[in-house]
Amino acid sequence: MPLLGRSLLDTRTLSAQHIDEIFLKADSMQLGRDAVAAKPAPVVCCLFFEPSTRTRMSFQMAAYRLGLEVLTMELSAGSSLSKGETPSDTVMNFAAMKPDVLVVRYGTSRELDALLPTLKIPVLNAGSGTLAHPTQGLLDAYTLRAEWGSLKGRRILIFGDVLHSRVARSGFDVFTKLGADVGVFGPEHLLPSDSSMSEKFGVRVFTSLEEALPWADACMGLRIQLERHDARLAPDGESLGGSVAANYLSRYGLTVDRLKLLRSDALILHPGPINHGVEFAPEVVSDPRSRVLDQVTNGVRIRAALLALILGR
Amino acid sequence: MPLLGRSLLDTRTLSAQHIDEIFLKADSMQLGRDAVAAKPAPVVCCLFFEPSTRTRMSFQMAAYRLGLEVLTMELSAGSSLSKGETPSDTVMNFAAMKPDVLVVRYGTSRELDALLPTLKIPVLNAGSGTLAHPTQGLLDAYTLRAEWGSLKGRRILIFGDVLHSRVARSGFDVFTKLGADVGVFGPEHLLPSDSSMSEKFGVRVFTSLEEALPWADACMGLRIQLERHDARLAPDGESLGGSVAANYLSRYGLTVDRLKLLRSDALILHPGPINHGVEFAPEVVSDPRSRVLDQVTNGVRIRAALLALILGR
Amino acid sequence: MPLLGRSLLDTRTLSAQHIDEIFLKADSMQLGRDAVAAKPAPVVCCLFFEPSTRTRMSFQMAAYRLGLEVLTMELSAGSSLSKGETPSDTVMNFAAMKPDVLVVRYGTSRELDALLPTLKIPVLNAGSGTLAHPTQGLLDAYTLRAEWGSLKGRRILIFGDVLHSRVARSGFDVFTKLGADVGVFGPEHLLPSDSSMSEKFGVRVFTSLEEALPWADACMGLRIQLERHDARLAPDGESLGGSVAANYLSRYGLTVDRLKLLRSDALILHPGPINHGVEFAPEVVSDPRSRVLDQVTNGVRIRAALLALILGR
Repeated sequence: MPLLGRSLLDTRTLSAQHIDEIFLKADSMQLGRDAVAAKPAPVVCCLFFEPSTRTRMSFQMAAYRLGLEVLTMELSAGSSLSKGETPSDTVMNFAAMKPDVLVVRYGTSRELDALLPTLKIPVLNAGSGTLAHPTQGLLDAYTLRAEWGSLKGRRILIFGDVLHSRVARSGFDVFTKLGADVGVFGPEHLLPSDSSMSEKFGVRVFTSLEEALPWADACMGLRIQLERHDARLAPDGESLGGSVAANYLSRYGLTVDRLKLLRSDALILHPGPINHGVEFAPEVVSDPRSRVLDQVTNGVRIRAALLALILGR
Repeated sequence: MPLLGRSLLDTRTLSAQHIDEIFLKADSMQLGRDAVAAKPAPVVCCLFFEPSTRTRMSFQMAAYRLGLEVLTMELSAGSSLSKGETPSDTVMNFAAMKPDVLVVRYGTSRELDALLPTLKIPVLNAGSGTLAHPTQGLLDAYTLRAEWGSLKGRRILIFGDVLHSRVARSGFDVFTKLGADVGVFGPEHLLPSDSSMSEKFGVRVFTSLEEALPWADACMGLRIQLERHDARLAPDGESLGGSVAANYLSRYGLTVDRLKLLRSDALILHPGPINHGVEFAPEVVSDPRSRVLDQVTNGVRIRAALLALILGR
Repeated sequence: MPLLGRSLLDTRTLSAQHIDEIFLKADSMQLGRDAVAAKPAPVVCCLFFEPSTRTRMSFQMAAYRLGLEVLTMELSAGSSLSKGETPSDTVMNFAAMKPDVLVVRYGTSRELDALLPTLKIPVLNAGSGTLAHPTQGLLDAYTLRAEWGSLKGRRILIFGDVLHSRVARSGFDVFTKLGADVGVFGPEHLLPSDSSMSEKFGVRVFTSLEEALPWADACMGLRIQLERHDARLAPDGESLGGSVAANYLSRYGLTVDRLKLLRSDALILHPGPINHGVEFAPEVVSDPRSRVLDQVTNGVRIRAALLALILGR
């Protein structure tokens, strides 16, 4: 069967015989009423109050890999559901539909912070405010453990907009729990205050990438999220595409020159999506030390593991 | 297995041992090619010509609970599908894909009213124009029956924008068929003309909530849909968020004071989403007589029942 | 069981006994935790860089008919995923989630043309640029074969905006491979240059529908896509709804008068969505020679066949 495992990008690669084979198969396809319902699967309800594609797809793929069904609701700012409703109303409504697990992403919301732990349905946090993104922290650690066997005594550098990053928070927590040392670097106004760093996480603050990169066994760049920044980064409302981006890269980003400061057996991570030419030079992702795509694969793996453990499979 | 049935809102609630457990499970997750296709399930095709989240999710959940698959198409005003196509074209196209059931929501459309009964595929109406929302009428009656055992001789008050409400129409029909007495109240210009009321449905028209509420065994508030109203509600184009909303609530809505007029064993319903501070004071949903979330749960139940009956499961 | 196979468009068609039957079924519906996960199915990941409803739904339906799961991502221009990312980044990210098949639609993109053949996951092209739409070419040929048994020696006319049509390209290729003769007609500036036609495809160029229609065993109209045209069609920025559309129809479209030039046993195709009153008079779709809805049904069949062959089912 010559089509097995092949791509079909154009009909020009098909012979008349191929086409015949396809047509015969089409003749045998059953549409409509002959289908018999499978046994119902547990349902994962994904409720995203903030836009997401990567994390949402990753949870959905993870659920499918366990044979679960997925009900997804992305509530953009103007969504009809939220008209006149509070986020709590929305969550309680979806919970009343009795899904088996709720996956929720939301911005800063004390209302939801208080509501979610009270629900009778297990809830997986797919990113909340600037404080927690547990599945990201777990998949980052899992990716490093796959390389190293253990994180114990390893040095992990997180650089960029640490202040607003839930990825960084969950990273600090998981990495240090697993015995790693964590360092941070970033523009001064995008770092948490020094005392909160050392008190909460025992984190080392670097003042230059030149100093930080040789120290690290792994470095993780964070996405710069302009919408969360004050005016210092883009004083004249310039877009990131222009000189502000280049300026940021040269001062705070992983340039081609700085790549040379990173040890040859060190690893490069990024939670994605990457701003090419801002936190990373375009060349970084194709560096042999990059594990950015492994993170994506491991994201599915970790989320499937969590769903399996929570549902008792 | 300590994660069974638990939420994960932050990594801080996880011990290093928990994390290990998650990682081991992640190691065992099968991604990609090892999956074996389940037996194909019947496919429910949801075609929404009007935006909806609640009803759409409810049908999808109902289908999943039966082990069915769901193909959903929300056709916003500017959808590419409808470019140059009539709604009938769109429906006939989807029907030609041979789903097992079609779920359709649409606004006022004589074209679709005429087409749908002629299709060879069973069609479930998920709300059409101002005249019919059969699954809502059924789930409302089902919710009351769950409390009362029977609707016979019970008094049900529907209040708010009765004129434009398909929920009210289907409610009138189902409630009276099951032997209940129905009353209505609302702004004069948002009630159907008196004669049509009494002729078609034998409905009692109340002129104040003060009179209507003590009469009722159950009262159902309707969502005020500004977009369907004439200028009387918001004479200066004010938004519902302001004084118009407060004014509406004090004249026509269920205020905290009026809640006291409702008997202690009476029930409160609302098809959702609720405009807090318009038809209901914010306190209403947490009143012990409210069955608003039961309606949501029962919506899944009723829709699953209909799909099961229509598909012969 | 009187509801079996029936539509529910209004509660008014239900008796009180029907309602009882529905309620009893609703009582028996299992929500929540009792569900047991089915065996995981292979996952089809649909990645649409250009909007599509018809093709996307068709692939999804095809996948469901095989018992596969579908992960769909429509990347509109402003999608969060593509911020700062290249289309290649996006594709590589989704590939890293390890779907079993990737279905991709995209506009003109040399970057993706180069990347897709290098992926380890089978890729199905759901329409790319102006050059290839292989499943459409296959379903069109399959529809004709269902009528004729074979395409050998048959004459197929493709008319309209041939220059920008990937449907036409894949049609030329498949039709001629199966032994058919292909002719084209359209506004002069919307035809590929004569030499490219005859060299690549051996296509006959007609200069009027009056000449072309009697020649044809089947004629396929193409959708006029204003967004791809130069100013000649709508010199003053007029919309297609106005006199420009009527003018196009009378000069280049299938009018009621021209329908008479088509033989009584000839067939009419269109890849959809049809611009009624532009390439086709509104009467065309209800002509008994039209196979437009068969094309839609066969689209599901062909895509299911390809998925089955590629996955080895």
